[in-house]
Amino acid sequence: MRLRGRKGIREAIERQRDLIVLEPAIYKGKWAEVFGNDNPIHVELGMGKGRFISEMSKLNPHINFIGVDMYDELIRRASEKVRIAHGIEESETDVSLENIRLALFNIERIEEVFDANELQRIYLNFSDPWPKKKHARRRLTHAGFVNKYKEVLNGKGQIHFKTDSRSLFEFSLNSFSDLGLRMRNISLDLHGGFEEGFNPDHVMTEYETKFAGRGMNIFRCEVVIGEEALAEHLDSLQGEQQS
Amino acid sequence: MRLRGRKGIREAIERQRDLIVLEPAIYKGKWAEVFGNDNPIHVELGMGKGRFISEMSKLNPHINFIGVDMYDELIRRASEKVRIAHGIEESETDVSLENIRLALFNIERIEEVFDANELQRIYLNFSDPWPKKKHARRRLTHAGFVNKYKEVLNGKGQIHFKTDSRSLFEFSLNSFSDLGLRMRNISLDLHGGFEEGFNPDHVMTEYETKFAGRGMNIFRCEVVIGEEALAEHLDSLQGEQQS
Repeated sequence: MRLRGRKGIREAIERQRDLIVLEPAIYKGKWAEVFGNDNPIHVELGMGKGRFISEMSKLNPHINFIGVDMYDELIRRASEKVRIAHGIEESETDVSLENIRLALFNIERIEEVFDANELQRIYLNFSDPWPKKKHARRRLTHAGFVNKYKEVLNGKGQIHFKTDSRSLFEFSLNSFSDLGLRMRNISLDLHGGFEEGFNPDHVMTEYETKFAGRGMNIFRCEVVIGEEALAEHLDSLQGEQQS
Repeated sequence: MRLRGRKGIREAIERQRDLIVLEPAIYKGKWAEVFGNDNPIHVELGMGKGRFISEMSKLNPHINFIGVDMYDELIRRASEKVRIAHGIEESETDVSLENIRLALFNIERIEEVFDANELQRIYLNFSDPWPKKKHARRRLTHAGFVNKYKEVLNGKGQIHFKTDSRSLFEFSLNSFSDLGLRMRNISLDLHGGFEEGFNPDHVMTEYETKFAGRGMNIFRCEVVIGEEALAEHLDSLQGEQQS
């Protein structure tokens, strides 16, 4: 990998205005216009190096993806991953990039960037566990954050959460429970091949490939937020019981 | 340990009618009369060798305990544990045994033994995980069982569930979630000393001592069933948020 100084990083992200959004708050309530269609918007909060969002955006052309991070360097690296996944050079723009944007902002400010009901899904992949109790409020599954997610998610809204941190997962199960939210497809060993395990057709992040390869546990669950999503979920449960 | 044949076991349990209930269905709706008071009734379903229920009954004289198992031999061994915990010889009866009974029946029949609202708490400790999918209905946290528990639990009713089986815990979290039940104090490593871990002042079972001593994981959660218990729980959560 070519190393770049801070100035080089900034230049690289400035050059890619087709893909990278540096002042995302401007588009609050207008993300459908940014994408030019009304497809559902899925956001990954804390996308890291961007492998997950790159592959998801390539695999799902009818969903709009926004990868969020607060660090220039991660945004730049993710932009490389996106272009590689879509087969596009840095100097090019291309229609295949139409369903993905990378947005530079601090997740604390999520409600300044997205309007109520603007998002359909939030992905939290391998978020920082912030193990010290005094930092509990920084965990992305803390009630303070989850209440913000509830605001910006629409009627079909869901949170998909994956982590290798047992303590973060434990904290999160309690956080979701205490908020009275409906969880489903809880997995305590995503790649462990439990007979009962839920193994969705999903894309792995960088971390996940590394950790799962070492035989480490991956924890996962979905949280059903939107009323329409909840009604569908309850219907499907009833269907299972009847069958 | 002295070994006894089947006949010896049966004789031993027949002799202890003060402690052991061989036809528990007779007392459906009348367990308060059996104990001679209106103290809350806590039941352990599948008590195994009975260490947990013995110690709990000794530590909590104002709660009535019923240990349930379907095997003569386990009932007999548990009766020894109870007498040792309470310091009573097999030949004696004693007021200190007034808050405990051991009941011989198959948990499938729980609704034939307890009336609606008759119990305040159900303990499930290290239940058989029944790992094969075709046996899922035998797991004591399967919806088929949990719906029966809901019937017999009262307004303050709770289920306290502990296991060393990750797959059973995963199954159970999903089962409780899918039933729309409220979980709390979920722990993925009860004795692991997580900063966030919930470590109740509790009595360990035989299994637990063995497994925790080997550094194996113990999983635990509480399920809040009764309306009054739920209201109290929601109040306490609100208190936490305000503080």
